Amino acid sequence: MAKSKRAKIEPIVGNLYAAPCPTRTVLGHITARWSMLILVLLLERKRRFSELARMIGGVSEKMLAQSLRSLEEDGFVQRTVYPTKPPSVEYCLTPLGAEMAPHVRSLTKWVEQNLETVLAHREGSGRARRAS
Amino acid sequence: MAKSKRAKIEPIVGNLYAAPCPTRTVLGHITARWSMLILVLLLERKRRFSELARMIGGVSEKMLAQSLRSLEEDGFVQRTVYPTKPPSVEYCLTPLGAEMAPHVRSLTKWVEQNLETVLAHREGSGRARRAS
Repeated sequence: MAKSKRAKIEPIVGNLYAAPCPTRTVLGHITARWSMLILVLLLERKRRFSELARMIGGVSEKMLAQSLRSLEEDGFVQRTVYPTKPPSVEYCLTPLGAEMAPHVRSLTKWVEQNLETVLAHREGSGRARRAS
Repeated sequence: MAKSKRAKIEPIVGNLYAAPCPTRTVLGHITARWSMLILVLLLERKRRFSELARMIGGVSEKMLAQSLRSLEEDGFVQRTVYPTKPPSVEYCLTPLGAEMAPHVRSLTKWVEQNLETVLAHREGSGRARRAS
């Protein structure tokens, strides 16, 4: 009893550098290949499953469903089923997801905007390796 | 000739949603498990290989070296070898890396600070699944 009380009083703060800390697991879910794309799309507005599947080039329905489920389990995404025929399923960010996703968007945006510079570096270092 | 001129004038901007666009590859390098940790540590200051190995719990020397090489090839990290005996190797962010890494840090910081909330969600959805 005393133990569970204490656990409630002390907030858990993650430590990225400690091997057993779940920070890395959560970070892994967020930065998983399809999850980042989903988060950025849902930051704009809520979307149907079929809409996400169409917008994300190369994703399979299975991988999209798995990624959405993982984001839902972490509390970032909310899934709503409407009793239409056939039922339509809609996804939106939760308040927690809406707080986190802008950090993902600022990173993906940076990469999109600086892609040319990064590719030039990669090309240059490939040439240097081949020449040596 | 006309073609290469045109290629120089039009800047390449990535599109995260197009399957063949290298944005995803670069994003994958940045958000790879150990790379995010390295970037945040190097944002504080330059560090030796041995220092990074000690600070990042659970990383092997092989994985650390591979992650650093990938970040170096993308132009985010610079490697300097000092001719001491034995030679010491130091890593720092390039100006490009120093521009990108704060976006990674803002995400890792958010996860560390909100870990308790995310874990509570995950625990709750696990209970709901087991009960259904």
